[in-house]
Amino acid sequence: MPAVDIRSLAKHLNLSPGTVSKALKDSYEISAETKKRVLSLAKKLNYVPNAYASGLRKKRSKTIAVVLPEVADSFFSIAINGIESVAQQKGYHVLIYLTHENFLKEKTILNDFKSGRVDGVLISVTRETIATKHILELQSSGMPVVLFDRIVDQIETAKVRTNDFESGYIATQHLIKRGCKNISYLSNSKSLGITNERMEGCRKALEENDLSIKKNFFIECSNDEANNYKRIKSLLSQKDCPDGILVSIEKLTIPVYQVCNELKLNIPGSLKVIGFSLSPSASILNPAITTITQPAYEIGEAAATLLFKSLEKSNFDLKNEKIILPSVLTIRSST
Amino acid sequence: MPAVDIRSLAKHLNLSPGTVSKALKDSYEISAETKKRVLSLAKKLNYVPNAYASGLRKKRSKTIAVVLPEVADSFFSIAINGIESVAQQKGYHVLIYLTHENFLKEKTILNDFKSGRVDGVLISVTRETIATKHILELQSSGMPVVLFDRIVDQIETAKVRTNDFESGYIATQHLIKRGCKNISYLSNSKSLGITNERMEGCRKALEENDLSIKKNFFIECSNDEANNYKRIKSLLSQKDCPDGILVSIEKLTIPVYQVCNELKLNIPGSLKVIGFSLSPSASILNPAITTITQPAYEIGEAAATLLFKSLEKSNFDLKNEKIILPSVLTIRSST
Repeated sequence: MPAVDIRSLAKHLNLSPGTVSKALKDSYEISAETKKRVLSLAKKLNYVPNAYASGLRKKRSKTIAVVLPEVADSFFSIAINGIESVAQQKGYHVLIYLTHENFLKEKTILNDFKSGRVDGVLISVTRETIATKHILELQSSGMPVVLFDRIVDQIETAKVRTNDFESGYIATQHLIKRGCKNISYLSNSKSLGITNERMEGCRKALEENDLSIKKNFFIECSNDEANNYKRIKSLLSQKDCPDGILVSIEKLTIPVYQVCNELKLNIPGSLKVIGFSLSPSASILNPAITTITQPAYEIGEAAATLLFKSLEKSNFDLKNEKIILPSVLTIRSST
Repeated sequence: MPAVDIRSLAKHLNLSPGTVSKALKDSYEISAETKKRVLSLAKKLNYVPNAYASGLRKKRSKTIAVVLPEVADSFFSIAINGIESVAQQKGYHVLIYLTHENFLKEKTILNDFKSGRVDGVLISVTRETIATKHILELQSSGMPVVLFDRIVDQIETAKVRTNDFESGYIATQHLIKRGCKNISYLSNSKSLGITNERMEGCRKALEENDLSIKKNFFIECSNDEANNYKRIKSLLSQKDCPDGILVSIEKLTIPVYQVCNELKLNIPGSLKVIGFSLSPSASILNPAITTITQPAYEIGEAAATLLFKSLEKSNFDLKNEKIILPSVLTIRSST
């Protein structure tokens, strides 16, 4: 009996050898139904892949890495689900590495990937990340890298994110429409591109409406919770206190609400609050908070899809891929 | 010049060779100061570990795995921080694997560890996990395994958890003290030990106070959010509706609050609510929710510490280690 090979499988199934080969490699180009037909016949006829192909396959760790600042944030925990939904279909493991916003940790993690532990990397950088050498080096070692959410402009690769500039603009316009004239903006590190873009959107809306941009109303918070609380309290205690606040980082919502409680500042009476947030508790806060919601699941899903395309198609160029998925304004009682 | 070895380092430093060896292996038994002295001299004298020792060391992946149901839950995202604090000190990577409450996924992940990808495993099982073969097999392959939070009684190894029975009892006693007579209990799968223990604690408090245990007030929720909402709405819509509710799973707080909003049920007037939760937003909900808070960070830290002890000391027996860290009741407006 002649050995069963891709050609004979293809003949049996009335498919092209290319389709059978791709189905055996679990390519995204092939439908689930066709894959099932191919795999079932391959099993029945006891198909053994030839050594060369099998060797190639074994080189793969069947694992992708997701490098994130943290998971105690709804955006990232939901984005992971989007990534895993794609990886699961492809039969890949997902490893999650946390940088805790520490650039040195990010560097060490990426360096470790060169040993071939993973086949591809999805990364959202720390807020300390300015240098790009560690990412460039990883790319030149042949590792496909996709940036999502917190991207770095200088790196040439696929980037998946939301429309941060427009979101900052829309959020500020909403506060202005609700009568705010003294608008404050709370952010994370300024080195982060997304923070800057949101802030630029906010500035543009203020300028268009001839509202003043007060330097001391633009506050750059840190990882130090006690200090953030103190700075927010000092902002909201001053005589000329803001009447609207745009919270560009989810976890800063909590100190803002707590400070308002402590100072007996009524939301939305004395202060209107809008936050970038995906927390499912937005609707049950006191009061329910108006939010800009990023499409976290879809961002994760799109980033993972691009990564797998580059793993499966040697001629697929990540550099050409830029995806922007819009955020959504949901108006609630806080404005 | 004779080669620098552990003995000569020890002589220089006036330490025993054993201490120097342990310091070079970054053992927890050696103080940070001594390690620093040893490493600094080793560097100065250009100490090169002998091939045998180095080979042994290289066998290690310097990586531990954390297997979790999900990260969109404050308990797990905080526990990870506790685990990472220990791993970082030891110079280890932490890989996070998510099971999404899927037993088959948990099985596949654990099976994959046998290839030596990681040196040790911390696991909190899925709510579907009843069978234990996958964990037993991993243990017999020589992999140290520590269970935390969601443990499995039948597995003989270190277990780190909170006092779930007492927490359920204390939470129910609190509702009774606030005048509740018809108490409902919302849980996850009954197969989970921790859910059962919390429920048994609740039952005991009801029995001691001669309050009836209504079968239809004990609701087992699922992963299906829409269905959970429906069941909670039906519970709170009935004529003989509960006057107190114990929410044993953090994420069920949101549908409870949303249903109360929809039905215009006042909390705490018509319904008193207490929840197992670590969410930092507990204090800013409408109304602020009374919580039972698990020591998540400490549980992660203790579990990781035990795992590293077993990696460092060949005679350390994980089986003898059982740690229970108590939860805390924080009373807020919802009761």
